[in-house]
Amino acid sequence: MRISELARTADLTVATVKYYLREGLLPAGRRLSATQADYDDSHLARLRLIRALVEVAGLPLASVRQVLGAIDGDPDDVMTAVGTAHDALGRVGPATADEEPPERALAALERLEWSAYPQSSAVRQLDAALAAAAAVGLAIDDGRLRAYADAALAVAREDIASVPSGSPEETAAYVVLGTVLYEPILLALRRLAQQQLYTG
Amino acid sequence: MRISELARTADLTVATVKYYLREGLLPAGRRLSATQADYDDSHLARLRLIRALVEVAGLPLASVRQVLGAIDGDPDDVMTAVGTAHDALGRVGPATADEEPPERALAALERLEWSAYPQSSAVRQLDAALAAAAAVGLAIDDGRLRAYADAALAVAREDIASVPSGSPEETAAYVVLGTVLYEPILLALRRLAQQQLYTG
Repeated sequence: MRISELARTADLTVATVKYYLREGLLPAGRRLSATQADYDDSHLARLRLIRALVEVAGLPLASVRQVLGAIDGDPDDVMTAVGTAHDALGRVGPATADEEPPERALAALERLEWSAYPQSSAVRQLDAALAAAAAVGLAIDDGRLRAYADAALAVAREDIASVPSGSPEETAAYVVLGTVLYEPILLALRRLAQQQLYTG
Repeated sequence: MRISELARTADLTVATVKYYLREGLLPAGRRLSATQADYDDSHLARLRLIRALVEVAGLPLASVRQVLGAIDGDPDDVMTAVGTAHDALGRVGPATADEEPPERALAALERLEWSAYPQSSAVRQLDAALAAAAAVGLAIDDGRLRAYADAALAVAREDIASVPSGSPEETAAYVVLGTVLYEPILLALRRLAQQQLYTG
């Protein structure tokens, strides 16, 4: 398709699509002539991912570039791509050398028998959240941790079951989109479920 | 207990506790003399709630006051207190008169056979999240919505089962604390579950 159709289908202006091309976020199309290029579904998928990262996750372009780099960078290892993308999305900054190891989180993951990269931002996010709850005297107990972990696994299974089979890049892109797009849905549903249980 | 012990147990300075007393966020203690007052566990619980709202949820004092008002305001109706507290916590602003009704969310809730106040901020939060996913061509399908809702219900059941029996104010306070403290734990676990499923 031509750039005008690509932009219209992605619900963006041509100027925005050209901007993403210039910034290197969107790969160039197949050149047809000096002034025309052809774009395909992979370009459309990439534009959707960029829109979700910018408009839904509210990421600045530098972080979008980082997420896209993670997705494009590890063609053989979906988990690393997903983990790195989570890091770029995460609300905690990168680990520093003199930081305490996330011991609460690592202990919790051991009790759950889950494996995880200790350097992953999700581990440090978990560690900070566990510490915050403990600091106000409401440390999460093992039963509740297990119940939350089971619910998180059920959601992640659904996340992954609905991933269309494709290249590792496509898989990582889809998982990132799901994380960004469906996280607010999950949180809203949890609050509504609380209200629901109190009406019943 | 005296104010010094109260402050120490809540891990706050005496100056901070006095500030919360002056601002009316913490009810006055039982007066023992012109210069001394006695505080009990309800004061300690209130201070923990304030700390969680300020330090974990990052709310400004005006919003903390709104959450506490919701909790104190509806002694006979836990659901209203919880819903109002969610509104004060919510990341979406209050509903305006000329706003579109949250039709996507209401339709989704009908499919789930859940009841909810259409004015609740959680409903509008859900509506915005559903619209954002649809806008990038990845509307959530019914199967995934149901799976997420089931996971949210399991988490909410655990949230509510662990609420100590007490007055509706205590219940609402506990639910609010759980929402604030355990939301980041749930999100971190979801990301780790995704990584987990890709390692297995």
